[in-house]
Amino acid sequence: MSPSVEDLAGNRVEDLPLTWLRDNCPCPRCRDPRNGQKLFQITELPTGLALDAVRRTADGVEVDWAPDGHRSAYSARWLTANRPAAGEGSGDRRGENGKTLWSAADLNGRLPEASWTEYLGNPAVKARVLEAVLGLGFALLRDVPCREGQVLEVAETFGYVRETNYGRLFDVRVEPDPNNLAFTGARITPHTDNPYRDPVPTLQLLHCLSNAAVGGDSGLVDGFKAAALLRAEDPEAFAVLTRTPVPFRFSDARTELAADRPLIDVDGRGRIREVRFNNRSIGTLLLPADELEAFYRAYRTFAEITLRPELQLEFRLLPGDCLIFDNVRLLHARTAFEESGARHLQGSYADLDALAGTLAVLRRERAVAAREFVDELAELFAGEGASAYLGEQVTMAQHMLQAAARAEEAGAPDALVAAALLHDLGHFHGPVSGAELMEGTDNRHSHTGADRLAEWFGPEVTEPIRLHVAAKRYLCAVEPGYFGRLSQASVYTLEVQGGPMSPAEVAAYEANPYAADGVAVRRWDDEGKDPEAPTPDFARFRPLLMALLRKD
Amino acid sequence: MSPSVEDLAGNRVEDLPLTWLRDNCPCPRCRDPRNGQKLFQITELPTGLALDAVRRTADGVEVDWAPDGHRSAYSARWLTANRPAAGEGSGDRRGENGKTLWSAADLNGRLPEASWTEYLGNPAVKARVLEAVLGLGFALLRDVPCREGQVLEVAETFGYVRETNYGRLFDVRVEPDPNNLAFTGARITPHTDNPYRDPVPTLQLLHCLSNAAVGGDSGLVDGFKAAALLRAEDPEAFAVLTRTPVPFRFSDARTELAADRPLIDVDGRGRIREVRFNNRSIGTLLLPADELEAFYRAYRTFAEITLRPELQLEFRLLPGDCLIFDNVRLLHARTAFEESGARHLQGSYADLDALAGTLAVLRRERAVAAREFVDELAELFAGEGASAYLGEQVTMAQHMLQAAARAEEAGAPDALVAAALLHDLGHFHGPVSGAELMEGTDNRHSHTGADRLAEWFGPEVTEPIRLHVAAKRYLCAVEPGYFGRLSQASVYTLEVQGGPMSPAEVAAYEANPYAADGVAVRRWDDEGKDPEAPTPDFARFRPLLMALLRKD
Repeated sequence: MSPSVEDLAGNRVEDLPLTWLRDNCPCPRCRDPRNGQKLFQITELPTGLALDAVRRTADGVEVDWAPDGHRSAYSARWLTANRPAAGEGSGDRRGENGKTLWSAADLNGRLPEASWTEYLGNPAVKARVLEAVLGLGFALLRDVPCREGQVLEVAETFGYVRETNYGRLFDVRVEPDPNNLAFTGARITPHTDNPYRDPVPTLQLLHCLSNAAVGGDSGLVDGFKAAALLRAEDPEAFAVLTRTPVPFRFSDARTELAADRPLIDVDGRGRIREVRFNNRSIGTLLLPADELEAFYRAYRTFAEITLRPELQLEFRLLPGDCLIFDNVRLLHARTAFEESGARHLQGSYADLDALAGTLAVLRRERAVAAREFVDELAELFAGEGASAYLGEQVTMAQHMLQAAARAEEAGAPDALVAAALLHDLGHFHGPVSGAELMEGTDNRHSHTGADRLAEWFGPEVTEPIRLHVAAKRYLCAVEPGYFGRLSQASVYTLEVQGGPMSPAEVAAYEANPYAADGVAVRRWDDEGKDPEAPTPDFARFRPLLMALLRKD
Repeated sequence: MSPSVEDLAGNRVEDLPLTWLRDNCPCPRCRDPRNGQKLFQITELPTGLALDAVRRTADGVEVDWAPDGHRSAYSARWLTANRPAAGEGSGDRRGENGKTLWSAADLNGRLPEASWTEYLGNPAVKARVLEAVLGLGFALLRDVPCREGQVLEVAETFGYVRETNYGRLFDVRVEPDPNNLAFTGARITPHTDNPYRDPVPTLQLLHCLSNAAVGGDSGLVDGFKAAALLRAEDPEAFAVLTRTPVPFRFSDARTELAADRPLIDVDGRGRIREVRFNNRSIGTLLLPADELEAFYRAYRTFAEITLRPELQLEFRLLPGDCLIFDNVRLLHARTAFEESGARHLQGSYADLDALAGTLAVLRRERAVAAREFVDELAELFAGEGASAYLGEQVTMAQHMLQAAARAEEAGAPDALVAAALLHDLGHFHGPVSGAELMEGTDNRHSHTGADRLAEWFGPEVTEPIRLHVAAKRYLCAVEPGYFGRLSQASVYTLEVQGGPMSPAEVAAYEANPYAADGVAVRRWDDEGKDPEAPTPDFARFRPLLMALLRKD
């Protein structure tokens, strides 16, 4: 049954790059078990590395190395997850391959947003906000307290404030003697901030304290999208902008800053990685005349793309809104406003790496919680589930496991197998117990179950569960003979649940996109009451559940 | 006399790249006079830009633009300083072209260092320390108070602390439950810190509070030098390392960090710009097998270069030392030490951009002070200098200007012309005036002048001045007939100054490397006393002085 050494993970171990394999030895002499850090230098590996012996083990492969006799054990799981390949993994999420590029219409008028209270209180909401910043380049927090300095607290929920010559935070409002156009009522076209800094702050926060001015709306442009369009439409211009260092400069009474960086920075694989765009701070380029001509042509072409109406996402920051955005990707803009109206934002800079790290920790915690959640389900099946199923000849657990087995036999998608497995979860632990239902009170167990599961499963699992009681009432109304096949207990509860549907209820039911799935779950529900039928273990469905769990 | 429009700055204005020229228009409609920021977007320039008219002005060139009729004026100075060319300027000082690459022997055992007190009190010392960090990659401050938290104060003298998950500062000492090898007594081979962060902190500070352990010495390697050696010896390996993203990873109970960056990052021109090197935190590379083979071969070759003995700069941090170093260039290391001995460093991260900005501001202030210093010299020549020159028929100013004119006629290098011009500066404002000298007190004006000028000129200017009185005593001893040519006043002061040199004094004089220059200045001094000779203006020597001034 176990695969041979040769085809484990689809590779012969002997064909793996040997230095790579050895460099990844997980033994405690090679890698600190506490933090995973490597304990050796690459130069300390013997030259002429070779495989002395390769053995299959219960869990994977064990290797004896020549010439030094070191022994390494690799799990099948590690070998499968890490096979050498032309991976285009998103890695650190900094390159375009880790992003979702967008035009304004792609967002359908819906900004990635959350309320401050939910963001603070619900790790899943926080994870979705941080994911939006990584993936789309921005997110909007609503109802952030309109307190001066609050923007720093927002930054500290995911990372560290990057202090600059502007301080830990800066005020954006009309100033009597502005040293920057930002501090006037002028229109500001799409740009990135601080291109004259290196490392440039990779995140910016803007917290709106008041915005009573006429005008002063905000705009965002996906600079990666604009750069990708340039590459598609004018590859030579794109190439020029990736290789021409542009002298960004800033100078005031106390400060002199300089960074010579391209407008579009690509990684070693040519993928877009950073955009800097700010005509205000471009100094004098000193290059041969032909390169200057080529640069200015390309620069103008790129600038025109950034101004295309379809790329402009426009919205208005209201008091309490805090915009968090990727300052090496998104260009931000502001319409002109009347300087007589009060408009006051506070801004701060921070960095993407800590934000991505905070999200990774939330996901790690989520993954732990996910395993714990499935463990709890298993315990419910073994504990409460082993008790009688209201008036039937099977236990609750038998009933749900049989329903799942029927779904599986029918070739149902995983989500519906899970829905069948968990459809009566609402009978457990609810505020109204199953016993109460039998005493004449509808415990609305379909809704209770769906709601409890929604933290972990998408609507493809929860909505058929939510509908499985309605589906009974629906089938009683539309399918001659269905009522006659119901179990005695089901007939009794039908009345408590409202009886067969009225024509209006039928029409409403059919309008639900999950109507058919609800009916399918209902039929497996009805079939899962056979005391003689073989009943699979809960463990059988565990991998399927794990794969369906929401990651955040 | 004035050059034609065509050859101004060696270019025909008509041949300059027109968009470039227009983008650099300095008029107040195009550029904010307060901060130099551009007030227009590149897309707002008319298409089909052309020169409608070009006129020579007193100060440069005036251009009328078609089609929009805009008028721009460019100074000759700007046109000269900014002509399009294959410039290899060091720009933001981040690339290898802005650095001095070194092997340990190049430093001759002398570390770039300064005392904390001098660093704080003397802007020139501070500038030299910051320049060393930019140019060599590190500097050492001595006698920094051994107080916990002091390292943050050091960072704040030139920039901003980069807070990370390790805090604003971190302790490097033996810990009972280390989550990093740094916190044990183990040897740490040359590496850069935090490669799993992006943006990575570009500066690190390490402040030694105690180091009583046996071992625990420090080492530095110039990673740019190592990378340049790799490029020279194995160009293909160099290319592989610049294009292979390496998955750097860090994980502990509260943190997950990831950065996929090459070991050697080059700019758009292929110049070395950043080095990341830290085997401890390299995760599993997922690439096709042939790329993995190529990477590991190149990585090992590079690692071996970083360990070459000639690249290792070794020294011992003593209590009160604070090392500041470029964390994207220098690799730092530590020898093993006995954990029983007390060794405690505090570290912090910061960034190069603010440090370079602080240096630029110091230099800007220095340049202002330099102009002011030359203005003061001009005032001295016009004021005190217009008074009588002790017993001669010329004024002090005439005397010194004539001496400079004689030096110039003799084809002397600029430094000696300046020495001749300023040789009697010590007569001005000194604690003992020239009049006192004539009353029989040696005011040691040669030394006073040299010392006052040393803040602004190198020894090639100050040392001949320091010697010009000794040179008189020397010539009286060794050159028959010299004494007979001295002016009456000079004969009188000779006695006050010590009379002709003894043979021992002659030998000591001749051993001075500036002996001949001192004699040369002395002869122009003797010749500069002719009331009939034409005397140039001080203004004639101003450019020469400005060019000779020390920049820091």
